[in-house]
Amino acid sequence: MTAGHNAGVESAVAEVVCVGDELLSGRVQDLNALWLGARLAERGFPVRRCTVVPDDLDAIAAAVELAASRAALVVVTGGLGGTSDDVTRQAMARLSGGAVMRDAALEEGLLARYAERGARPPVGALAMAEVVTGAEVLANPAGVAPGLRLRVGRAEVVVLPGVPGEVRAIMDEVVLPTLDRGTATGTRSLWLPLADEAAVGDALAPLEAKSRVRVGYLAADGLVEVRLTAREADAARVAAVLEAVVTEARTLLAAGVPEIPVLDEPPAFAAISRLRAVPATLAVAESLTGGALAAALVEVPGASVVLRGSVVAYATDLKARLLGVSQELLEAYGAVHPDVARAMARGARERLSADWGLATTGVAGPTPQDGRPVGEVHVAVSSAKGDQVRSLSLRGDRQRIRRAAALGALGLLLESLR
Amino acid sequence: MTAGHNAGVESAVAEVVCVGDELLSGRVQDLNALWLGARLAERGFPVRRCTVVPDDLDAIAAAVELAASRAALVVVTGGLGGTSDDVTRQAMARLSGGAVMRDAALEEGLLARYAERGARPPVGALAMAEVVTGAEVLANPAGVAPGLRLRVGRAEVVVLPGVPGEVRAIMDEVVLPTLDRGTATGTRSLWLPLADEAAVGDALAPLEAKSRVRVGYLAADGLVEVRLTAREADAARVAAVLEAVVTEARTLLAAGVPEIPVLDEPPAFAAISRLRAVPATLAVAESLTGGALAAALVEVPGASVVLRGSVVAYATDLKARLLGVSQELLEAYGAVHPDVARAMARGARERLSADWGLATTGVAGPTPQDGRPVGEVHVAVSSAKGDQVRSLSLRGDRQRIRRAAALGALGLLLESLR
Repeated sequence: MTAGHNAGVESAVAEVVCVGDELLSGRVQDLNALWLGARLAERGFPVRRCTVVPDDLDAIAAAVELAASRAALVVVTGGLGGTSDDVTRQAMARLSGGAVMRDAALEEGLLARYAERGARPPVGALAMAEVVTGAEVLANPAGVAPGLRLRVGRAEVVVLPGVPGEVRAIMDEVVLPTLDRGTATGTRSLWLPLADEAAVGDALAPLEAKSRVRVGYLAADGLVEVRLTAREADAARVAAVLEAVVTEARTLLAAGVPEIPVLDEPPAFAAISRLRAVPATLAVAESLTGGALAAALVEVPGASVVLRGSVVAYATDLKARLLGVSQELLEAYGAVHPDVARAMARGARERLSADWGLATTGVAGPTPQDGRPVGEVHVAVSSAKGDQVRSLSLRGDRQRIRRAAALGALGLLLESLR
Repeated sequence: MTAGHNAGVESAVAEVVCVGDELLSGRVQDLNALWLGARLAERGFPVRRCTVVPDDLDAIAAAVELAASRAALVVVTGGLGGTSDDVTRQAMARLSGGAVMRDAALEEGLLARYAERGARPPVGALAMAEVVTGAEVLANPAGVAPGLRLRVGRAEVVVLPGVPGEVRAIMDEVVLPTLDRGTATGTRSLWLPLADEAAVGDALAPLEAKSRVRVGYLAADGLVEVRLTAREADAARVAAVLEAVVTEARTLLAAGVPEIPVLDEPPAFAAISRLRAVPATLAVAESLTGGALAAALVEVPGASVVLRGSVVAYATDLKARLLGVSQELLEAYGAVHPDVARAMARGARERLSADWGLATTGVAGPTPQDGRPVGEVHVAVSSAKGDQVRSLSLRGDRQRIRRAAALGALGLLLESLR
């Protein structure tokens, strides 16, 4: 398959065409290509090329025609809105030999939507009720303009609005299920905080050699997500294969990266769900993470049942005043020390009346602090069972060190909760 | 210019080609196209197309050749590393008729770099000392592999490593200055928290009509950045034009969006610099923002001189215990109330011994709280001069409401500091 880029249509290869001046001018970051790349690869349609073109009829038609000459599936995003620069429908009509027509049912639905809110549709909004003759209309569960599916040459072309939430909704609910063609697909993820992506890849190499599952990696700021995708004749078999593969992956990871926790959810989600299951409450004390650890926990729906609050004692004297860290300790060692982390975790637990306390202290940089080098970080956890401290030596810029410190704290908490 | 997409080479139009399997498989979000789109447009080279291709010699060569047939400038990123799948150099050699050769000076520098760290270069690393004969070598101030500049047909092709920091360094220090061709370019930005991008655009429409300055907008999570770029014969004239344009923009914004503060820095940076200038210290009390407001302030270098800390009183009883909010107030109105925000700001200022206190409380959703609707947010500021409260009605999901609440608090603080 790899040798065939220019050798005509490949049976199970996709291309993506993103339409929009704003994507080229540096105004808006495209978020669709990344998501489509991952999802289409999981379904057996690796994306071979992505082209971003302006809101220009000729440019759109040329890019889609070229993509359709090379790939079996082309996904086009953007240019289906209700303003004069939205010309993707016209480009599709030209390529397919169809015409742009207003769909009576869509128009009725659109007018009813505005009427419900007591609003009149803005100028041009009715363009969102337009379709291309001969194209299948794809219902949009998340927005107004529907998607379209049509043939250009031998390729199947799926045309979607540019809004990421609408792309995902139409793909997940309408398009991806039909790509399975009599098969079922499922994905399970594992998350490894503070893991090295290459080491995780090495550990899972035996898994990649198997044909029944695809292994994908997504690494950001020290967190590695392993995505395992299976495609089988039916959903029951997918579930069985994934169950077996996840078990095998856990065994391989336990051998290959024994020091790294392997989670079924992202770390903050895993921490909140395990504490909810106990049930137990959590209080946080932060120095270098500056509120980011609490903010990550708060992002989890239902966090309020678990999270009492956080004390960001950025100034050293507040570590004594708000968290009860001993003045002698701070004078003797400064704020960056394992015993300070331990005292902060205990202080948070006691002063915020929580079952568990979690703390971070360290040097995010750019310069050393209290004689400690950039990247020296101590995280601690405290509960009625006792306290635990872990010292980390982290690399990167301020933001990276902060995020890794928060991950390290969550990792320690999760181990203590086991 | 807009009509000429397919009509041969346009004199001042660019294309971008991004190379990398990981960009197509959904593993890595491309960050180069967005940045290049903004910077090249500012220099008078709007990007007309961006193509993402896999690490495949034929695919890279075909994409660059096509781009070079349409645009005067082509920027290629990625595929210059030291592993076997990095084949961009080979593609460039094929297109330009040159050969891939190891450069003795680069090799020496590379070996010295590893020797300094007492490390041996990994397998393949010496590929990063390879250049294409006939191509200009572009020094890389941020990494190992240099960039290359060569001609393909009538187009100038700039080839850069894929790492965003290296793309920016080589472009800013080596490539962009040469694009000015006897002219100088400069940019000034203004930031407007909690502004509507369309309203800002309407207010600045008279500015866009002027030929001496380009106006660009970048909007994310309620913060609008207005970028003003001027291109003149020399740096002194650029500075004079920008000074005049910024003054005019401020006048137009004061008339068009009078309720929105107009900042010379992003809000958290502006808050820290104004407080440093006083000089004064700040303490934060957070409810719905959950630590994100403090975390945004901590991101600013030098924040430790100003920021004392933050109390994230997520649980209602902690608002009384840690911040001294009156129990009667909380019982009568719940946690989401202007007076609670005021008492939190005052409590933070007093209990954390700061000159200024800043607080947020509200409902991030997804469900109402204490009988208050999703999006009801109150922010407050407290100082020796007195207290101020502002009530906001925000829209969006949890994350959006939180970020907007933090922006609203910073906006109120900045107004109070004027």
